[in-house]
Amino acid sequence: AYAAGVRMFAFDSEAELRKLARSAPGARVYCRILVGNLGAEWPLSKKFGCELEMARELMVLAGELGLDPFGLSFHVGSQQTQTAAYEAAIARVAMLFTDLRDAGVKVRMVNLGGGYPVRYRSEVPEIDDFGAAIMGAMTEHFGNALPDIVIEPGRFIVGDAGVVSAEVVLVSRKAKDDPVRWVYLDIGRFGGLAETEGEAIKYAFRTPHDGAADGPVTIAGPTCDSTDTLYEKSNYRLPLALDCGDRVELLATGAYVTTYASQAFNGFRPLAEHYV
Amino acid sequence: AYAAGVRMFAFDSEAELRKLARSAPGARVYCRILVGNLGAEWPLSKKFGCELEMARELMVLAGELGLDPFGLSFHVGSQQTQTAAYEAAIARVAMLFTDLRDAGVKVRMVNLGGGYPVRYRSEVPEIDDFGAAIMGAMTEHFGNALPDIVIEPGRFIVGDAGVVSAEVVLVSRKAKDDPVRWVYLDIGRFGGLAETEGEAIKYAFRTPHDGAADGPVTIAGPTCDSTDTLYEKSNYRLPLALDCGDRVELLATGAYVTTYASQAFNGFRPLAEHYV
Repeated sequence: AYAAGVRMFAFDSEAELRKLARSAPGARVYCRILVGNLGAEWPLSKKFGCELEMARELMVLAGELGLDPFGLSFHVGSQQTQTAAYEAAIARVAMLFTDLRDAGVKVRMVNLGGGYPVRYRSEVPEIDDFGAAIMGAMTEHFGNALPDIVIEPGRFIVGDAGVVSAEVVLVSRKAKDDPVRWVYLDIGRFGGLAETEGEAIKYAFRTPHDGAADGPVTIAGPTCDSTDTLYEKSNYRLPLALDCGDRVELLATGAYVTTYASQAFNGFRPLAEHYV
Repeated sequence: AYAAGVRMFAFDSEAELRKLARSAPGARVYCRILVGNLGAEWPLSKKFGCELEMARELMVLAGELGLDPFGLSFHVGSQQTQTAAYEAAIARVAMLFTDLRDAGVKVRMVNLGGGYPVRYRSEVPEIDDFGAAIMGAMTEHFGNALPDIVIEPGRFIVGDAGVVSAEVVLVSRKAKDDPVRWVYLDIGRFGGLAETEGEAIKYAFRTPHDGAADGPVTIAGPTCDSTDTLYEKSNYRLPLALDCGDRVELLATGAYVTTYASQAFNGFRPLAEHYV
């Protein structure tokens, strides 16, 4: 990456920092700290980041290794529906900022990560609400000495841009008097809808029978795998008239869907992409 | 499929049966029933199959629709470690068999599905144990009038045939005094190890430092996604000497790994396949 011109890198461990000192001498580096992910429908809380005390030591070490200890970052989790998550995380970063300035490290940047939510089935705060909450917290903690602010609003930008067109493969019941129908689609967890794991991201559906009488459904993908079940506990309802061959649309599937698609599980081809 | 010469089909619902009567007139059909999956590390219990009573009615209907109601099937779940799961399922099938014969339907086949386990980290019964348990149960319930028996031992046949060669990308700790190290590999949940979801399938590891002192680890994949964490609760231990750049081998990964691989999540290419 350094050879290709990248001059700013994230890190969260000593081993990574020493790799950077070797491979990207003098580069700007920023440390990711662990923050709460409460309120996020797709949490990203544990895998990256380190505790504040360790971040402090690593930022000092970065300077000693000839790197530029440029900033701090965090991630409040993807599809974050609570503005308070950003406020709490900014307070945490501000504490460390002060500590580091006291230790002689001139931190100049805060990366607020991503997480801004898309409207799937339920209402979420407007992006302006997030903006107001974030700028309020930044001003409260940093006053007029605002650092550079970086944000990474991936899902928010592209989520609404994608629609998956799927076909109903089968509608069935497991027993004759079962009130819940199973609706099988030709796309599922391994065709790109990986974020339905644990029913985390709840996509909205549009069908040719919208408005007609509906009933409870379990929605599943096409493969032989039982884990390829999208929604069983999230109280989805679909029209009773829905039948094999009907096309349904999954809305706001612009984020991450095509890249998650498996290359051939059960022989299904990856999703075809059409841009309009 | 019918046009390509397939003459036997599984079904578990009336809609599917009517589709078959239209598209595959006269074909042999068999109904999948729901059975317990206790003991399976990768359960396949809910998505396919129907209750016994409904199976009985559907098999009768199959004959009325001009199809050949040929048999019954079930699946006790993949990586099934208990021979008793087959015994219980066979008892269930036998009941229905008798019912159907009484109703004038000449059922001639039982498909026992798959599920025979591969040895990953822990001992599993030998394939002979499964064979003995299954034939014991079949003889007990069917006597000398054994139906045709079909089995689908996918994982058991190919599981041991595959080894994934992965590179350690980083070894880190989240805090300085954390006893648990995080080991990041260049393969993860979206690179083919989808069956590590919920830490269900626990692959065995081989490293260049095996035999040396080890310690507790969390093992993660390379992507930005927190769910791309393989083992956190399964008490994995890896050598303390393990470092970035080391190659580790994941054993018995012949089953399903390459087909689960996502086509480009986070820009990672699908796993390269080498046959020796």
